[in-house]
Amino acid sequence: MKPIRGTVALLAITLVGLSTIQAQDPLPSWNAGATKNAITTFVAKVTRAGSTDFVPVSERIATFDNDGTLWCEQPMYVQLRFALDRVKALAPQHPEWKKKDPFAKLLNTPKEEMVGVNEHELVEIIMATHAGMTTVEFEKTVANWLGTATHPKFKRPYTECVYQPMLELLAYLRGNGFKTFIVSGGGIEFMRPWTEKVYGIPPEQVVGSSGKLKFELLDGQPVLIKLPEIDFIDDKAGKPVGIQQHIGRRPIAAFGNSDGDQQMLEWTQGGNGARLMMLVHHDDAAREYEYGAKSPIGTFSDALMAEAKQKNWTVISMKKDWKTIFAFEP
Amino acid sequence: MKPIRGTVALLAITLVGLSTIQAQDPLPSWNAGATKNAITTFVAKVTRAGSTDFVPVSERIATFDNDGTLWCEQPMYVQLRFALDRVKALAPQHPEWKKKDPFAKLLNTPKEEMVGVNEHELVEIIMATHAGMTTVEFEKTVANWLGTATHPKFKRPYTECVYQPMLELLAYLRGNGFKTFIVSGGGIEFMRPWTEKVYGIPPEQVVGSSGKLKFELLDGQPVLIKLPEIDFIDDKAGKPVGIQQHIGRRPIAAFGNSDGDQQMLEWTQGGNGARLMMLVHHDDAAREYEYGAKSPIGTFSDALMAEAKQKNWTVISMKKDWKTIFAFEP
Repeated sequence: MKPIRGTVALLAITLVGLSTIQAQDPLPSWNAGATKNAITTFVAKVTRAGSTDFVPVSERIATFDNDGTLWCEQPMYVQLRFALDRVKALAPQHPEWKKKDPFAKLLNTPKEEMVGVNEHELVEIIMATHAGMTTVEFEKTVANWLGTATHPKFKRPYTECVYQPMLELLAYLRGNGFKTFIVSGGGIEFMRPWTEKVYGIPPEQVVGSSGKLKFELLDGQPVLIKLPEIDFIDDKAGKPVGIQQHIGRRPIAAFGNSDGDQQMLEWTQGGNGARLMMLVHHDDAAREYEYGAKSPIGTFSDALMAEAKQKNWTVISMKKDWKTIFAFEP
Repeated sequence: MKPIRGTVALLAITLVGLSTIQAQDPLPSWNAGATKNAITTFVAKVTRAGSTDFVPVSERIATFDNDGTLWCEQPMYVQLRFALDRVKALAPQHPEWKKKDPFAKLLNTPKEEMVGVNEHELVEIIMATHAGMTTVEFEKTVANWLGTATHPKFKRPYTECVYQPMLELLAYLRGNGFKTFIVSGGGIEFMRPWTEKVYGIPPEQVVGSSGKLKFELLDGQPVLIKLPEIDFIDDKAGKPVGIQQHIGRRPIAAFGNSDGDQQMLEWTQGGNGARLMMLVHHDDAAREYEYGAKSPIGTFSDALMAEAKQKNWTVISMKKDWKTIFAFEP
């Protein structure tokens, strides 16, 4: 019996510790008010045994957009910055790029973000920098790049430019039995190498856009080669599709920040019982960025704002609702 | 302090209960021998803290084929039986089928399983019976059918024709921190309505073949329509691709029974560290079925058997290694 008694003593200590933590605010970076209340009221409702809104743990699915919802997407999608850096890094192996657009115009200016590229050219850049290698090689490339690249405004690694209130929200939901998923228009293989460490979201709970893969034996070793062909675009009407294909259940809570998340929130709300739909609004030029209806990145159109109001979705004001935006703030 | 003390007492009882259970054989339907040892030795190795083979819980991924590995696939894939029954059920709404093959030849015989259909016709049957409805409608149709259909040999619902030793293996792995996934050539939406109840595997851990989906607002309500178009075939070289797209990590253990699982086992073995690859061999005509190299369903070719031997994969003999095959056995 001795080891069991020891374990019980340890558990008693742990339980006392837990009850202390629960008494603390689980969302300290959120200012008190209607937005914060919307979150805590919803969680209380769906987790209270016996309540008509109770949801079993297995069905507590919450989905989060990534760019602009969990991390900063300005002044350029991080993955595009990665692709442009890869063009530069790969240029010596591609002498033909010197005379071939879009590579030529990118390589001939120090300010690639100012160079206009059309959608077709953008796909060409993504394919040239994301395909033709194994999944293992690509994962290493992403991890290495994230280890050195920094955000131009915040002078920090991109993986530190994540929203502290959303990290708290992820942990709060998981602490209440939720399974948290990313459902992003970004590349699934670009996110998976770091989402577990940064957000606590493991690779198998990341849904995103993807390229086609091909299984091969290379010198007898099995590999998956990334092909220069789009498999799935996980954006707008693609998000409910991605959710169904990957998760196979409808979320009861969904979080986004732009027109790309509209259908995910509609799909979430369409289920029975209590639901929580929230949109992050970037209205803090001083601490982060201020953008919305007119921004080509993370467009938050007037139509989306009107739909949010009409359907009782909560719009999060970064300026008013978030006490802290980044953990590194002074 | 009172409620905490009460909880501790309860936990003490639970812990005593647990240590009793752990002393029992976790795989009682497996006969003692090399096959059972291969499982328990592998699990001991990867879970022993400090061992060179130790694998963190987050990376303990195990993938299971479904047809012929977890449930009976003879004398016909269950999903094909479902599709044929759906042809009959839907025939009144499709008077044109009376004169149109393959529907005509299926409807004009009481023994559809004897009717030869080519691959093109099979796809036509699947599309006609699996598409053109919402995902919610399809889920209900599958659940209703499984509630009434029975296996022709065992006279039991198909969801009872599951292998008891594999149910124990799934529970044993999960009890040791593994996350268990299905990776099947079968339809993902055909499996998800029942895998949690039958195998303890939730929808988000089911990987399978899929049709394309389309998000729509139908009378203002968001729905996902199943389109008559193949999205992905999760078989043979498709299995490592399905694993990467859905899970994003390489399994450390994989279980199959046919040529369709060859690449999944190769991909699993290709990673670093301890690995477990197993193939169920159907060699028990009395208790289940006996088939292999010459069977069009669940082909276990001589080449696969040779590869298993050469690469040290374990072949499970249903006859010798399984004490019980089905829970309903006398």
